[in-house]
This record gives sequence, structure tokens and C-alpha cells, in this order.
Amino acid sequence: MQRIVVLAGGIGGARFLRGLKSAVPDADITVIGNTGDDIHLFGLKVCPDLDTVMYTLGGGIHEEQGWGRAGETFAVKEELAAYGVGPEWFGLGDRDFATHIVRTQMLAAGYPLSAVTEALCARWQPGVRLLPMTDDRVETHVLVDLEGARKAVHFQEYWVRLRAEVPAHAIVPVGAEEAKPAPGVLEALAAADVILFPPSNPVVSVGSILSVPGIREAVAAADAPVVGLSPIVGGSPVRGMADKVLAAVGVESTAAAVARHYGSDLLDGWLVDTVDAQAVAEVEAAGIRCRAVPLMMTDTDATAKMAAEALALAGEVRA
Amino acid sequence: MQRIVVLAGGIGGARFLRGLKSAVPDADITVIGNTGDDIHLFGLKVCPDLDTVMYTLGGGIHEEQGWGRAGETFAVKEELAAYGVGPEWFGLGDRDFATHIVRTQMLAAGYPLSAVTEALCARWQPGVRLLPMTDDRVETHVLVDLEGARKAVHFQEYWVRLRAEVPAHAIVPVGAEEAKPAPGVLEALAAADVILFPPSNPVVSVGSILSVPGIREAVAAADAPVVGLSPIVGGSPVRGMADKVLAAVGVESTAAAVARHYGSDLLDGWLVDTVDAQAVAEVEAAGIRCRAVPLMMTDTDATAKMAAEALALAGEVRA
Repeated sequence: MQRIVVLAGGIGGARFLRGLKSAVPDADITVIGNTGDDIHLFGLKVCPDLDTVMYTLGGGIHEEQGWGRAGETFAVKEELAAYGVGPEWFGLGDRDFATHIVRTQMLAAGYPLSAVTEALCARWQPGVRLLPMTDDRVETHVLVDLEGARKAVHFQEYWVRLRAEVPAHAIVPVGAEEAKPAPGVLEALAAADVILFPPSNPVVSVGSILSVPGIREAVAAADAPVVGLSPIVGGSPVRGMADKVLAAVGVESTAAAVARHYGSDLLDGWLVDTVDAQAVAEVEAAGIRCRAVPLMMTDTDATAKMAAEALALAGEVRA
Repeated sequence: MQRIVVLAGGIGGARFLRGLKSAVPDADITVIGNTGDDIHLFGLKVCPDLDTVMYTLGGGIHEEQGWGRAGETFAVKEELAAYGVGPEWFGLGDRDFATHIVRTQMLAAGYPLSAVTEALCARWQPGVRLLPMTDDRVETHVLVDLEGARKAVHFQEYWVRLRAEVPAHAIVPVGAEEAKPAPGVLEALAAADVILFPPSNPVVSVGSILSVPGIREAVAAADAPVVGLSPIVGGSPVRGMADKVLAAVGVESTAAAVARHYGSDLLDGWLVDTVDAQAVAEVEAAGIRCRAVPLMMTDTDATAKMAAEALALAGEVRA
């Protein structure tokens, strides 16, 4: 059975994983999930990216929105607002609250996040092994210009409240330096047949995962070919605001620049969209095998084809 | 302005308070609320009696049920059950959850329960000053025969899950001995013009409040007349299962026995229902002034009349 390890963020990663499962239903898939955008809200531990993967693969996701639960209601949030308790800009629904309540209660009882995630997945049956990148607390903060001052805000505040519309100067995964990979992460990377970077945000999603000491090294040292898919198509992000955070770390918003940002020490292969075919030569010049294929995840079939192309490129690189 | 202090449990106490406010809208009412039935559920601090008073007087109560919120939904609870997380026997609704989330978050931030209750009441405007009996943790446990063994269970488990249908041998307010009255409690009792015991449960509601060292003494020492209303009418509780917990502490379920249980060191006056008129002589023989008046809280008007009778008896006792 093919062992595939995927470093995933939220919506993009989750949708890619659905395509991957469709492409290779018998594969043994381990997902290393980003926890850098985790946040404590209302005294509860919220893990947006882990939950997006879990809900998407488990059939509970709000399809159009891409995050949160299908058929969601917002009674708790409305009541919290009636008490004057916010933040109001973060959309926690009632069904979603239950997940955070269970998680927070288990963490308080002493279980590490990896064990909690496994317990939550016992209900959702995502069909992959979902591991948080770390059991330690890492929170991505963004250095921004806000109200006339330069200050660090939590990634969610930058992303959701400020909609990435204020100038960002640095992205800092606070706590990453002291964090250890969660149990199973390094083992999965070492045993992988293929390692994939889905078209997730290269800075705040895949970048956060790689910021945990040991993970970048394990990816670089893995026997398995490492293949990524560009989240940038035609010079702008397919979804989200990856261009903003790429700018903050001094990387151009092009498919080739993102490949060079990861670098040939990590990447063996890179897929760009057909509209970026001219980037292939530049990426290959950087020592990374590159192909131009359709990269729009319009539906599961299209996404499954992308995943198949990534696996094909991995096979080519290996050979 | 007449200063009235009321020792209140949940539904009965809350409904009585609504009648009292209607009877004397200009009175300065302080409620000392029972926290002995507080419980930690899903990692949240739940204060059923305080909330019942707050929601009832603040216009948010589920009228027919007597507890919980009007227009309540149960998405969080259903989701928790889908995760296999209980208890399922405790009916926490979505709107109610918000109250517990705010409370738990404030407690975690270091605020005492009295300050938290004041903050919650800033929204609900109950028109009374609502004080928890203590800021310390007190939990009423019940010694029961269950599954062939004698064991202590939380009051809520006895009351809600077991519906008081198993033999109870003792009622223990765990933690009461080390508890201190919340700020304002002793001052309110000392400054009161009248102290009232509504027809709340004499053991697990008013009894829990009196179990906090200093409160019983302050009631006994108060200059104000102390008048109670019998929760037992015609030999059985008007609502709830007070007879079960009275039996556990060796008190007969009669209006007169409850008066004697409180005793003339606490009570100056006692109201029994007209159907218990024969008890008046027995109560007065115990040194407690007694009147027989209608004691069914069928609506706010009937309840206001009961409150007025209690205040009239207090005036009589004082004179």
C-alpha cells in the first residue's frame, strides 16, 4: 500500500485531500496538519485547519463556505454577543462549538492534542490519519501596521478580522522554536513513499508546519520524493490571500517564486497550472522537476486528476 | 426603601421573587442564591439556581419548564452526544451554553463568582441584587443506594438523572465547612428590614445556603424579622421532590415539620397554605408566628399576594 504524507493547511489542503483519496482510495494517507492558526476563543481551544480537514473528509463541512459545519446555527455566538463577549468577527457556530468543547475538555484532562484529534476523528472517520504538526502551542502572529503603530496580531485577527488588508511585515510562528513534532510525524515522513505539499498557503500553512524544528529536516532527508502543487495560478492565489503573506516574507506571488521559496532541498517536483507553463523552465533551472497541468480544484474529479498528476510526477522523480 | 433579603433556590425561589417584585416594586431586594447545585459539565461551570433566578427575573426563562432559556435549541448538546460526550441527562441548551462559557471564562480569568454573577446580571437586569451564597466551591452530594452499593452522587445526578427515585440517606454540602459567605451577604442580612425564605427546597436550596458558616448565624442574629413560606402543601411538595430530601434528613413532609426544622432560632414567622390551617397551632407552639394563606404560585398575582402576606406577617412580628 502506497504511504502518502501530506502537509496540509485548511480549505485548500482539505479539498486537495478529498481529491487525493478519490484518486488513490487504497493509499495509506497521513496528514500533518497546521496548528499555527489555532486560537483560544471564549476559553476554548479552536483548531481551524485540523477541523476543516476533519469536517471536509468526514462529510460535515459547509461545502460552499469551505470551513465550518453544514447546517450550522449560531445561537451560542448570538448569546455571547448579547453578553458583550466577542470576538464577533470569528464565526463559531453551535455545532462547531461542540468540537471545541470536547477538545478543550480533553486537553484540560491532560490529553495531548494528537490524542484529542484522534478521538475527534473516531467520530468523523476522515479516512486518513490526521496528526497535528505538534502537541505544543504554536501561534502564528503577523507583524502589521495598525492604528498608526507596528504591532503583532494573531494570524486569525489579521486574516479574518483585518482581511489581510493592512500591511504585513513579518510572519512569526510564536512558540515554534520550542515545539516538538507530534508523535508519529517524523516516523510518517521517514516511512513515506511520497510526500505532498498541496496548494495550501506556503507561508502560514505549510510554512508553519515546516517551522517546527525537525519537520523541515525530516522532509529534506526523506527517501520519498517530495512534490508540491502551486497555490498561485496566473500570479494570484487560487483562493485566500496568500499573496499578502508571501509579500510579507519577501516572496513574489508567482508559481515559480513559491517553488524557489520552498527550494530544491525540500522539493523534488512542482506542479504549476497550465496558464503558468512559462514557469516550468525557471523552476527546473532551480533543480526542481516541473510540469504544467490544470490546477483548479473545481470539483473532486478535477482535484483527483491534480493529485494523480502529483503522484505521477513523484514516480517520475523517483525513477 | 424597604430592604428585603431573600434566600432563594431555583424555580420556586425565582417565581416567588417575581411575585415579590410585583408586590413591592420599589423595594431594595437582595437575593442570596444557592450554589450548592452548581456542577461542572463539559469543562464549564454551571450554576442552575443562579441562572434560573437571573433568567426568570430578566425575562429569558422558559416559562412552562421553569428553568433554561425560552426559545432554546440544542445543537451543541446533540453534537456532544455525537462525539459520545455526556452526560446526556442534563439539558444544556445552546443559549444556556453561552452563559456558562462567559462564566467559565471569567472565573478562569480570576474573577470570583460574585463578580461574574454581577457581570451576567448587567445583561439580564433582574431588578434585584443577586449574590451567590459563596464564591467558594460547594457541591451538594447525596448519599444514595445505587446499583447495590451506598455511594455519594452529585445532587444533579440524584435529582435529574435518578429523579430522586433511589433511597437517599444523607445530604452533604461538600466544601461548605471551608466556604465563606460571598462579599455582601452578611452585610445584606445585617442591614435587612425583612428576611424571607421563599417556598424553596428547605434542604438542598435554603439548607445549602444556611450551611455556609456565618450565614445561619447572621440570619439568627439579624434585627429583621425572618419569615418563611412552606414549600409543603397538604403533605407534599408543591413542586419538585422536596419530600425525598426531607426524608433523607429525617424531617416529615408537613408544613409544620419544615417550620420546626428551620426552628424558632431562625424563623419569626411562617406561612402555611389554607389546606394546612390545622398546622398553625403546632407551629405557633414552636415559638413561630404562623398564618394560613393560599400558597399556590399559580400566576404572578397569586404569588404577589403570597409575598404581601409574608411581608404583612413580618410587620406583625416586628411590632
